[in-house]
Amino acid sequence: MQYKPLILITNDDGITAPGLRALIKIMNKIGEVVVVAPDSPQSGMGHAITVDNVLTCNPITIDEGPQLEYSCSGTAADCVKIAVNEILNRKPDLCVSGINHGSNSSINIIYSGTMSAAIEAGIKGIPAIGFSLLDFKWHANFKPSEEYVKNITLNALLHGIPESIVLNVNIPNLKEEEIKGVKICRQANGYWKEDFDKRKSPYGKEYYWLSGEFVNKDKGQDTDVYALENGYVAVVPVQFDMTAHHMIQKLNSWEL
Amino acid sequence: MQYKPLILITNDDGITAPGLRALIKIMNKIGEVVVVAPDSPQSGMGHAITVDNVLTCNPITIDEGPQLEYSCSGTAADCVKIAVNEILNRKPDLCVSGINHGSNSSINIIYSGTMSAAIEAGIKGIPAIGFSLLDFKWHANFKPSEEYVKNITLNALLHGIPESIVLNVNIPNLKEEEIKGVKICRQANGYWKEDFDKRKSPYGKEYYWLSGEFVNKDKGQDTDVYALENGYVAVVPVQFDMTAHHMIQKLNSWEL
Repeated sequence: MQYKPLILITNDDGITAPGLRALIKIMNKIGEVVVVAPDSPQSGMGHAITVDNVLTCNPITIDEGPQLEYSCSGTAADCVKIAVNEILNRKPDLCVSGINHGSNSSINIIYSGTMSAAIEAGIKGIPAIGFSLLDFKWHANFKPSEEYVKNITLNALLHGIPESIVLNVNIPNLKEEEIKGVKICRQANGYWKEDFDKRKSPYGKEYYWLSGEFVNKDKGQDTDVYALENGYVAVVPVQFDMTAHHMIQKLNSWEL
Repeated sequence: MQYKPLILITNDDGITAPGLRALIKIMNKIGEVVVVAPDSPQSGMGHAITVDNVLTCNPITIDEGPQLEYSCSGTAADCVKIAVNEILNRKPDLCVSGINHGSNSSINIIYSGTMSAAIEAGIKGIPAIGFSLLDFKWHANFKPSEEYVKNITLNALLHGIPESIVLNVNIPNLKEEEIKGVKICRQANGYWKEDFDKRKSPYGKEYYWLSGEFVNKDKGQDTDVYALENGYVAVVPVQFDMTAHHMIQKLNSWEL
């Protein structure tokens, strides 16, 4: 019998999200699948973990299939922690997170629950990939993503992902025939220009809604944003050593 | 009249936290201070932002002093966004976050609201520093931190912090005379080994409390953890380009 890799799946849009459902279908063809995902959407939660409240994690059946599924009250990062410690009986061979409804390219990685789950797995020494489709809609079309998700996953299992690295994969919102291929990229230098929508409650109290638009400051043609704008799937290798090593020497000249 | 720098202060332990109060006192001696901080503790929230709910932000007076203070319903990163867009009439010269009650050295930076606020400011092109004391207690002694916080801040204002870099400063929980000085460090390679405390509710439902212990895998003597263990204040320059640039060439050999 062929060895089947154990694949842990999670996301931050919640266990019923169509992007997660699409990912389960792809992974069922590759390995033995266990899903541990949030019971409600956790978008924008960054690398939050639940330290001030209890967590629940219960078996659930949402779709038919060979996968085991668990619904967890916490964040995406919580799901990875509880899966590895309480659900799985061995370390998974791979953790995949997504497919996120919306981009996690450029600075979005910082705010991303999808990527925080992949990073949490990476910290634990588990090869991990976050997948995102550039379409926020709940009923986004994940069909064109399938071949790319499958191929990148098979390559990761074949070649391995070095320790302390995880992959951030973003897929353009295009038809299958319009996607030109895959580019290995660096994270574009960008930011969100906020637009606070200030309103008044019926009782006269002021409140805000946070929204905004993404600004790409980066003219480079080797960035994830450039690749996506030009019809390519963008793969960024991500590290969680955030040290700016090149700055250490300079700081040593300060009088501290 | 001498130019006074505009200093934005925030934290993740909440606006009444003694660590924030200590930071305000120090900064009042250096510049014009505006505080925009969460109305409740936000620890473990990572780089969460509030996209699924409204935000409130209201003037408040907690301590006497020249500072202006605002209490915000969101996370530490939200506080920086709302401060820059809705509260301040010009871009601050510096953003300081903390003083956090507890360590943000090594991998803790990933889970840290304190550092997410500093990083959020850095993304906006504002020089920023996160300060943390290695004492979780609410009534921790912030006195020995004062000279170091002040000196590092003055150096940052004097020399400037290059764009796309923020500083992560951790202070050992020692008496003034026991602290040996300041070391510029890299982030230690470590992780949290979780310990889920499984319990049953009075109604028979299982739930978990997340706890654990920090494991330092790093033998290096140039890390923040090593510096702190040896009585030094640790300063790590942090970048938010998370690309593992050295991996790009290797990934280009995959068949994608």
